[in-house]
Amino acid sequence: MAAVEVENREWYLANYAPAGVPNSEHLKLRTVSLSLRADSIPDGHVAFQILYVSIDPYVRTQLSGLDDGLSLPQIPVGQVIRALGMGKVIRSKDEKFSGGEIVISHICPVAEFGVMPSNLLQKVNPADGIALPDYLSCLGMPGITAWVGIEKIGNAKEGSNVYITAAAGGVGIVAGQLAKVKGCRVVGSVGSHDKVKLLKEEFGYDEAFNYRVETDYDAALTKYFPDGIDVYFDNVGGKMLEAVLNHANHGARIALCGMISEYNKVWTEREGVRNLLNMVGKEVMMKGFMVGSYYNQFEEFVKEMEVHLKEGKIKSKHKIYNGIGSFLESLASLFTSSNVGKVILQVTP
Amino acid sequence: MAAVEVENREWYLANYAPAGVPNSEHLKLRTVSLSLRADSIPDGHVAFQILYVSIDPYVRTQLSGLDDGLSLPQIPVGQVIRALGMGKVIRSKDEKFSGGEIVISHICPVAEFGVMPSNLLQKVNPADGIALPDYLSCLGMPGITAWVGIEKIGNAKEGSNVYITAAAGGVGIVAGQLAKVKGCRVVGSVGSHDKVKLLKEEFGYDEAFNYRVETDYDAALTKYFPDGIDVYFDNVGGKMLEAVLNHANHGARIALCGMISEYNKVWTEREGVRNLLNMVGKEVMMKGFMVGSYYNQFEEFVKEMEVHLKEGKIKSKHKIYNGIGSFLESLASLFTSSNVGKVILQVTP
Repeated sequence: MAAVEVENREWYLANYAPAGVPNSEHLKLRTVSLSLRADSIPDGHVAFQILYVSIDPYVRTQLSGLDDGLSLPQIPVGQVIRALGMGKVIRSKDEKFSGGEIVISHICPVAEFGVMPSNLLQKVNPADGIALPDYLSCLGMPGITAWVGIEKIGNAKEGSNVYITAAAGGVGIVAGQLAKVKGCRVVGSVGSHDKVKLLKEEFGYDEAFNYRVETDYDAALTKYFPDGIDVYFDNVGGKMLEAVLNHANHGARIALCGMISEYNKVWTEREGVRNLLNMVGKEVMMKGFMVGSYYNQFEEFVKEMEVHLKEGKIKSKHKIYNGIGSFLESLASLFTSSNVGKVILQVTP
Repeated sequence: MAAVEVENREWYLANYAPAGVPNSEHLKLRTVSLSLRADSIPDGHVAFQILYVSIDPYVRTQLSGLDDGLSLPQIPVGQVIRALGMGKVIRSKDEKFSGGEIVISHICPVAEFGVMPSNLLQKVNPADGIALPDYLSCLGMPGITAWVGIEKIGNAKEGSNVYITAAAGGVGIVAGQLAKVKGCRVVGSVGSHDKVKLLKEEFGYDEAFNYRVETDYDAALTKYFPDGIDVYFDNVGGKMLEAVLNHANHGARIALCGMISEYNKVWTEREGVRNLLNMVGKEVMMKGFMVGSYYNQFEEFVKEMEVHLKEGKIKSKHKIYNGIGSFLESLASLFTSSNVGKVILQVTP
């Protein structure tokens, strides 16, 4: 049990970052006193110590001060950053939650402690053999994101040629394994040689390539997709999406999950895709999605994913950053190809 | 009955036109002798006099000598141009066809006479009160194209905000009327003041604007779609598609039918669409289509369309060019906003 009054360190937005990777000009750490005394916590609220925060590219789009295309609310200047996070209940003013329980929130403060309305929290009952961070990766938001893109939108089937960008990232690594479970041929692109090796040797990708080395995307796709692309799980957008449209098969499906190559630019500076006409001749279907719209299928997803995890058909991979002080570094790391797997900030050891 | 030997004038491809509007350097008329004697016509073939040829933008994409995005075969240099056409049977070597019957082919030569295998012909039994050219417009390929985009892909419903580009063209004019039948609010853009007037006064569009005058597309869409766009029937692509993505509502559907603004350019010179990220946040679905893939639904379409025509809810509008010599002029006219309605070449009066 934590003290009744804590010095809570939290990250807040000091200035908007319309372009570029956010740095210490934009995001700052501050310490605020937080009372955890029972009479300080409003009815229907829960106080918790934050264990893990999920570090995801979409967070960057809430720091630009611009309507940038993901339609997520901009965080007001001066306010605490919020992200998907997991904590342990310290004190509860809602009888449905008790001390020691594990909770998840999609708008958890990036801080050491939080006090939130209980209706914004979901309880987690960790199953045997499943590590807590898995509930923020394979079994959480990134996992269902991968599942929606591969199964619900991509309609990947046995023999489909599936291409995944940012393939060693938190979503990509699950998407690729899911496609392999479905019997697809899977190729991923990543930003380092080590990731290429890892995808092929540990995660069962049929092929993988480093887009920083094979910079002629058209040539790379010619090489890795001799039979064309049936399903594209797009995490990057821009020039790579354009190249994919030159290699899409008739009736191909493209799940637009995010466009990390474009997040650090204002929209008029983004790469234009010039060959959308290919979508007509090839009757390509392209659909953007926000995973929140599919949470009504969460149970179906978890049921399927737990089986894959237990059978060892899907493995998790985490890159853990330690301590609340590492948030900025962990966020910036998403844009430099320096991580493998789901990036997670471990706030409390 | 025509003479047994005719001097048949036909249009052929003299040179590919990779960019620009094709002209007399690329398309030329020649006269070839054609025997219509019974023993000159192969078994299973039908000889016919061509009455009407449908002039459609896709034909231009078969004249570039490049794989341009529609994935249609390029017409080999020296060969006759082919398009959707209608003729009257002169002589048949297939017992299912008789002299005087009306036939349609999707690869009819652009000529005065044709001899084709009967399996490439469909018979038309003109109904009372329906003019022959209607079978090349509302009740033909342009009609089902409009129907697929509005109903099957666009899923237009009562109250949907529907936007149609090239709205006074052969497909657009049917698409707009179909959307009105469904109870939608319909706005069209066109290239002349006369067309704006016509769409609003004769074809029931709620609003229409001239994109050559209102050149700030973003401002125009702000003005004409105060409640955003739910369904976009895209006939033009490029900058207009980009503007639409800034005004799309959550869950909007975009039917990509063609991109006439881009046909006269090689693909790397085409306008890039920079804001596809909007598709993610707004969960937009975009699907390209080639109408041939929907011909298995032709009966369902005709059944519905005939009712609309008989009830006067959908009207046809044709721009007729007279004589085989006018083909080049009629084709070029598609790219200059000079026509209203379906462009048809009347080969035989």
